[in-house]
Amino acid sequence: MIEGKAGRNMTAEIGEQPRILAELVETRAEIAAVAEAVARRPPRFALLAARGSSDHAALYAKYLIEVLLGLPAGLVSPSTTTLYGARPDLRDVLLVSVSQSGGSPDLLEVTEAARERGALTVAVSNTPDSPLTRAAELAVPVKAGEEHAVAATKTYSATLLALYLFVDAVRGGIGTEVADIGRLAQHSLDSTEAEVARAVDRYRFADRVITTGRGYSYATALEAALKLAETSYLATRAYSGADLLHGPVAAVDEDTAVLAITSEGNGGTAMRDPLDAVAARGADVLAVGSAASAMRAAVRIELPRTAEEVAPILEILPVQRLALSLALARGFDPDNPRGLRKVTKTR
Amino acid sequence: MIEGKAGRNMTAEIGEQPRILAELVETRAEIAAVAEAVARRPPRFALLAARGSSDHAALYAKYLIEVLLGLPAGLVSPSTTTLYGARPDLRDVLLVSVSQSGGSPDLLEVTEAARERGALTVAVSNTPDSPLTRAAELAVPVKAGEEHAVAATKTYSATLLALYLFVDAVRGGIGTEVADIGRLAQHSLDSTEAEVARAVDRYRFADRVITTGRGYSYATALEAALKLAETSYLATRAYSGADLLHGPVAAVDEDTAVLAITSEGNGGTAMRDPLDAVAARGADVLAVGSAASAMRAAVRIELPRTAEEVAPILEILPVQRLALSLALARGFDPDNPRGLRKVTKTR
Repeated sequence: MIEGKAGRNMTAEIGEQPRILAELVETRAEIAAVAEAVARRPPRFALLAARGSSDHAALYAKYLIEVLLGLPAGLVSPSTTTLYGARPDLRDVLLVSVSQSGGSPDLLEVTEAARERGALTVAVSNTPDSPLTRAAELAVPVKAGEEHAVAATKTYSATLLALYLFVDAVRGGIGTEVADIGRLAQHSLDSTEAEVARAVDRYRFADRVITTGRGYSYATALEAALKLAETSYLATRAYSGADLLHGPVAAVDEDTAVLAITSEGNGGTAMRDPLDAVAARGADVLAVGSAASAMRAAVRIELPRTAEEVAPILEILPVQRLALSLALARGFDPDNPRGLRKVTKTR
Repeated sequence: MIEGKAGRNMTAEIGEQPRILAELVETRAEIAAVAEAVARRPPRFALLAARGSSDHAALYAKYLIEVLLGLPAGLVSPSTTTLYGARPDLRDVLLVSVSQSGGSPDLLEVTEAARERGALTVAVSNTPDSPLTRAAELAVPVKAGEEHAVAATKTYSATLLALYLFVDAVRGGIGTEVADIGRLAQHSLDSTEAEVARAVDRYRFADRVITTGRGYSYATALEAALKLAETSYLATRAYSGADLLHGPVAAVDEDTAVLAITSEGNGGTAMRDPLDAVAARGADVLAVGSAASAMRAAVRIELPRTAEEVAPILEILPVQRLALSLALARGFDPDNPRGLRKVTKTR
């Protein structure tokens, strides 16, 4: 059923990330030029439009924009435009559309409508000459190279980095916190192999998995849940650490595996209460991040320390490996997930 | 284990909703007065802050604000304020904080910080004299009466209606589309009993459940997932119908129950493709809404027709009954879910 080539694309693309991230930092001047154009027309409000994995990257950018730029920001619900024809006044609004393919019809429609309504539009895409990049006034290139696996890996981490470099440049930064990100990414993959393998063994038969994180790392928890759903067909759900203490903690029991993203900083510190709560309910916690060793967890995947706002770029790397290896261990080919196309056309 | 009184509070509070909704419409002048104060200081952007069930009501309001008011809107990530101390410029921003208890410390902090930063703040709460209503400049009362069950039911539907009346009044409306909502709510509960009982039988042993909806009804799908998680401990996850066609459809198989919210209008029409896709994968579809009869589904819970933007107020009613009855059928007491408190204090 599964041949030796199963997961070949996803394996290769996960491995390419350290190089891609390092190269993207080297070409940050190109992103900085876009950021300068934005800084010359300072917006008062930011909106982010995306679908799928890119939606998680957009959420990460929302946190960056609110915290680092002090701008209120929101995620676009594309259907208010595409289904209901909403045409809000978008003067002084920065609209950032995030799409690896640049080919989603709904994002294209949202971007065109926003530009018509006065928004400054920026496309963040891995496809330089896509309908989306042509529709937007400005474009931030992701430069991850073509992605062959259906499950997004390198385009996700590179999109996070591109968004970080963009927001950092809008505030006048020069990418100091990510100067070494390529090397740190390599270390994050190499040094975690044994623990990822252990996690694969442990979760081979798990069928109740939730993921959780707070602050910047909530984006990682969402992406982790999607990765597990699309490769291992687990009905995984992500909760922010704060929301987990509301209703959802009731669904956690000793049969639940909790993948918790815990990096050093305020987000990771705020995960202690929710993790104590799920551990008290007997859940099996897998902690991933630079603060993993400080958490009550059965398995810990420790990552290098970084500034908290760039940690998501590293956090996702061992999680991608986990999703890949778990899919293979369960007899699935993560390069050919049932029922999926690479570009999903929704309106 | 479970006594005859199991679920007594939740049962009673579900049944109170038609009366509560009808009474809230009768006192709409009070909400209209708040709306007039907002209309006198027209905002350019709206932000919504909430946690748990109220977060789903806030998402509903986001759609209302974007479509009916033509204002860009976003959901607040409280942690950018509470964990990272973001202090964005919020002049010309309307901040709507939604909390049945009005007691969440993080929403209080977000509201206070937003008011300091220039936002016009409105608290939508079921607790008239709460810290949140005192912190906000204006308050929209929800008037559902004290809620005893841990799972929010009447406060959820009444909050949706209060938000609708508020947004409708900001645009100068007089609540025409909800004039009859109390009677329609009674009908939605009474006429669906048999089909809800059938769904309970059918899903007694289901353990893979996803919920889905589009447009206004996506909020219902999210609330349905939370209700099932907190009463029946199902690791249920909600997807917008559009996102479902991305990665998550791979996780759908013949062991998956899909609870689909499908009301007449553009959102419901847009559910046909995703429901065809999940049906083709063998999933068992339960359709709830005024367009249920038009969908490929194993069980259909048909609701009265309404304007699409008010359908979520009715859609949730049979879903609450389903969550309640499914919990009882599984031997749980939905009034005393394991591990939950009524007011969750997160920061």
